[in-house]
Amino acid sequence: MAARIYLTPGRSHRVLRGHPWVFRGEIARIEGNPADGQCVELYDARERFVGMGMYNSRSQITVRLYSRQLELLDERFLSEATSRAIAYRRALHGPEDPPAERLVFSEADGLPGLIVDRYQRHLVVQTLTAGMARVEEVVVSILQEQLNPEGILLRNDAPVRHWEGLERAKRLARGSYQGPLQMSLLGVPTAVDLWEGQKTGLYLDQIENYRLVASLAPGRRVLDCFCYQGCFALVCLRQGAREAVAVDQSVESLARGQQSAQKAGLSVQWVQANAFDWLRESERRKDRFDLIVMDPPSFTKTKEQRESALRGYHELHIRALRLLSSGGILATFCCSHNIRLADWQELIGNASSDTGVPLRFLGFLRQAKDHPSLVHVPETEYLKGFLLERAS
Amino acid sequence: MAARIYLTPGRSHRVLRGHPWVFRGEIARIEGNPADGQCVELYDARERFVGMGMYNSRSQITVRLYSRQLELLDERFLSEATSRAIAYRRALHGPEDPPAERLVFSEADGLPGLIVDRYQRHLVVQTLTAGMARVEEVVVSILQEQLNPEGILLRNDAPVRHWEGLERAKRLARGSYQGPLQMSLLGVPTAVDLWEGQKTGLYLDQIENYRLVASLAPGRRVLDCFCYQGCFALVCLRQGAREAVAVDQSVESLARGQQSAQKAGLSVQWVQANAFDWLRESERRKDRFDLIVMDPPSFTKTKEQRESALRGYHELHIRALRLLSSGGILATFCCSHNIRLADWQELIGNASSDTGVPLRFLGFLRQAKDHPSLVHVPETEYLKGFLLERAS
Repeated sequence: MAARIYLTPGRSHRVLRGHPWVFRGEIARIEGNPADGQCVELYDARERFVGMGMYNSRSQITVRLYSRQLELLDERFLSEATSRAIAYRRALHGPEDPPAERLVFSEADGLPGLIVDRYQRHLVVQTLTAGMARVEEVVVSILQEQLNPEGILLRNDAPVRHWEGLERAKRLARGSYQGPLQMSLLGVPTAVDLWEGQKTGLYLDQIENYRLVASLAPGRRVLDCFCYQGCFALVCLRQGAREAVAVDQSVESLARGQQSAQKAGLSVQWVQANAFDWLRESERRKDRFDLIVMDPPSFTKTKEQRESALRGYHELHIRALRLLSSGGILATFCCSHNIRLADWQELIGNASSDTGVPLRFLGFLRQAKDHPSLVHVPETEYLKGFLLERAS
Repeated sequence: MAARIYLTPGRSHRVLRGHPWVFRGEIARIEGNPADGQCVELYDARERFVGMGMYNSRSQITVRLYSRQLELLDERFLSEATSRAIAYRRALHGPEDPPAERLVFSEADGLPGLIVDRYQRHLVVQTLTAGMARVEEVVVSILQEQLNPEGILLRNDAPVRHWEGLERAKRLARGSYQGPLQMSLLGVPTAVDLWEGQKTGLYLDQIENYRLVASLAPGRRVLDCFCYQGCFALVCLRQGAREAVAVDQSVESLARGQQSAQKAGLSVQWVQANAFDWLRESERRKDRFDLIVMDPPSFTKTKEQRESALRGYHELHIRALRLLSSGGILATFCCSHNIRLADWQELIGNASSDTGVPLRFLGFLRQAKDHPSLVHVPETEYLKGFLLERAS
């Protein structure tokens, strides 16, 4: 029989309203002695059943609910949830068969802590919670049966595993994988290294934005700031950008970008530098760009760093706006959970006022649709951005 | 010589940071005796030149800046700004020639208080401030020369003119206009009455959303709530919706919608009712829809009504969610200035929690791109919405 966890009165409001996370301080008492990763039954302070969760004493998020019914996280449950997630992507992409896509996105697909990405005929799986790690082998078998991939790679090297008390490791769980895959990303030949690439290989959450930004690129001089492998720069050139400069601090990422560029016959100007410093120097040189993409890493993992992160983002936008030509476009992203959309909106407005650069708002940018979010779980909506145009 | 207006110290922060509005309480003193509608020079508390504005003693927004240079609101200025606005739409629409579009959008085009909409070969002009009303004839001449339309209609019947102390009237300023125009709106023949239709004839700000929502309609049972002429219902049926119910309180709007439907050979179920009441009854009948569009009028024109407006919107969403089938889509809009995006986001999250209907966030909705907004003038971004999907 599963252990029972009882919520403290009052403080558990969020969970009773559909949110799947129970923090340590919200637990009044535990009946039984659940091991980390085991299923538990959750009850409110008045002993009414709330749902089923995965327990982890080591995590601040001590219980993650996976169901509001009395049911175990067993093969049947996992198989049905995985099928639903895959069917959702089939409906989303229609007849189009993208070379890479996210098939399972954790809470948003009712599978807290499970990420499954497909790259052509290979799957990359991440289990990020103790509960999901416990059923990892079951999940792998289900995926093998449902999708019959050439290989399933476990990329369990994500830093968040540390907070769950899990080891960080990578291994091939099924089939085979012979080094980087070659795929076409919006017409650009791209090598994707499933063992070493960022996240599970590519920033799949940006794929729709690559397409959108590239469609605006023809004839423009493009700056791809925090470029990683230079995907924005490359797709913009492929779509007719006049010139592209790509800046990143990582030598390895730039080297990968250079390989792609060479194969594609595209000429990017690669710059290995700290973006802040480089932007400052470019301002001194009175350099100008007609399309600037800013996709920085998260400046804050915690709420405490929020203020200093906001200052960093503000400085970045001040510098970028000073390099933007009249009629130029700025596509700017924020992937920090702790910076909300309203903060981001205010920050952009301030940067516009502080520089005297009037900006027209062309549209919102967000994570790709195969990374769904749930409105009652704000944490699932993490990548936000704005498409802006210098008005004069 | 133009009168001079001096800002109070401190309070004028917003204006010095690029916002074009000076409120009555922010004026320290006036040198000269400007008539309402005349151009004035604006100075800060330390007597430094800020910009040129249109003065109106009757308006809470007593000065509206149109330039940060020392220049009059004369023919040259108006002609250049209008050309720029038109060129912007040409670039936006590319080779596509939309049957109707907004050509000038007030502050966002540097022409505070001027609206110019094009419907085929006719223009509809609104002057909404005393300053713009004063140069109305100049503007009409410029438009006639630049665009050579068949007719220019002045739709100066907007309620906001009242607050500027302006009369409300409609008149034909140039050429001719023989009653409702016939145009194709995404394949639906639509009669557009430039004298009597909402705003200047159609909700031009929704045109991009008509296309987006219609693309999701095939096979679905659609509810168009606050439907006006039923544009959402009609374009959804044209794109393959299974059925469409359109609810509005206005008999005249429904009659117009019925005419369009008849001409297009589309069968909409028209319901003349209060939307709140009708939604409640539908819930009792256990009615279900696969695609619900909610595009209510603004529930609040003032900050004071904000709280009651939020309650109204909340109730509306509760009712709508209870009619949404599993996998169903909700496209919901808010055109109230006083409800910010963050409020709207919170409201949707609460409605989801309160009903227990889990919602996936599919995307942001906003006004069409030919209604540009400026990030440092939040008032120019007014139409916001979310595209949501019932997750289970």
